[in-house]
Amino acid sequence: MSAPTTPGPAVADLLGLVAFGELLAFERMAGDARLAPDLRRRAALSEMAAAEIANYRRLADRLTALGVPPEDAMAPYLAPLQAYHDSTEPRDWAEVVTKAYVGDAITDDFIREIADALGDPDRELVLDVLHDSRYAEFAAAEIRVAVAADPRVADRLSMWARRLVGEALSQAGRVAAERAALTALIAQDDRVDVPGLFRRLTAAHTTRMAAVGLNN
Amino acid sequence: MSAPTTPGPAVADLLGLVAFGELLAFERMAGDARLAPDLRRRAALSEMAAAEIANYRRLADRLTALGVPPEDAMAPYLAPLQAYHDSTEPRDWAEVVTKAYVGDAITDDFIREIADALGDPDRELVLDVLHDSRYAEFAAAEIRVAVAADPRVADRLSMWARRLVGEALSQAGRVAAERAALTALIAQDDRVDVPGLFRRLTAAHTTRMAAVGLNN
Repeated sequence: MSAPTTPGPAVADLLGLVAFGELLAFERMAGDARLAPDLRRRAALSEMAAAEIANYRRLADRLTALGVPPEDAMAPYLAPLQAYHDSTEPRDWAEVVTKAYVGDAITDDFIREIADALGDPDRELVLDVLHDSRYAEFAAAEIRVAVAADPRVADRLSMWARRLVGEALSQAGRVAAERAALTALIAQDDRVDVPGLFRRLTAAHTTRMAAVGLNN
Repeated sequence: MSAPTTPGPAVADLLGLVAFGELLAFERMAGDARLAPDLRRRAALSEMAAAEIANYRRLADRLTALGVPPEDAMAPYLAPLQAYHDSTEPRDWAEVVTKAYVGDAITDDFIREIADALGDPDRELVLDVLHDSRYAEFAAAEIRVAVAADPRVADRLSMWARRLVGEALSQAGRVAAERAALTALIAQDDRVDVPGLFRRLTAAHTTRMAAVGLNN
């Protein structure tokens, strides 16, 4: 556990990023629910979405406690995160669950990696808003069903997952360039190993793809 | 409090109606959040939406406990509720909050009226999923702001509210015609006063309209 530190502006930057990520993930998953093939799955995706908003509230409350209006802390991420979602609009249910599976997991891995650059209670808070694993299991099971029903789907979803990662990296680069304090927090913190970070994110992603029958 | 009774098929009908109402209200409000003029309001509407899904889960669990798959209980309402929302797609933020304000309140009034036709624990459950009043207050405040900013908005929103009620009644009529057991449960139960029901729903709606500066 890190020692408690006084949060600097970079902390609000990071909490704002995670908060807006939750808010937008909520909206997009809720919107994607209409692509579900039945009411059971439609409700399941809506419940996954709703879990994001509870996390959003905790992050927004912490920002308010730090004296930063949540909307100010989130504003810098509006354009890049919106661009990510706009450029990765799922066309069917298999793409919806693949996007949730890939996106949530990479987000969680990233948060876990950079959490150590934060002092408590912010470190504890961001670790606490990681996604519930039962949702990842639901998404993984749906991908396996889609691939089992039609093996050609594996190729299409593998390509889709590569596009998701590509678009996410491109927008992450944009955020890193624009938010100097945030980038410095992550890059200059001895507790975060930046070269290792990308290596580990990529390795974990590859393992997850294989686990649902997709290739990287 | 009513005496506990063995729930008949009409109970599953009613729980299915309320459950699907929650699920669809969730989806629509989450989708409408994109019309919010700023991030604070966008988050507020998303949180209102998320509250619906928690209620959905409780109703779905109760249906499962009664031996009825929630998707079966909800299926009859898919077409009419979808038709209601499709025909009342808000075009701007003022219409979004007016739809939430009018729709949630009439739904709650209706549930309160028919709850007495249910035995416990179903009666307690449906009374428990009524909307949180702080959301109604949020929506009412937003309508007042819109009307104060431009008095002509009051006419447009009054007309919009009449359309919402008209479309809701039209779809409610369709449900009543198709779901005989549900209609019988409500109409034949001594504890529910049907002519009074419509009178009271209308009177409460008129009072709510006036409270935000709209006319009926």
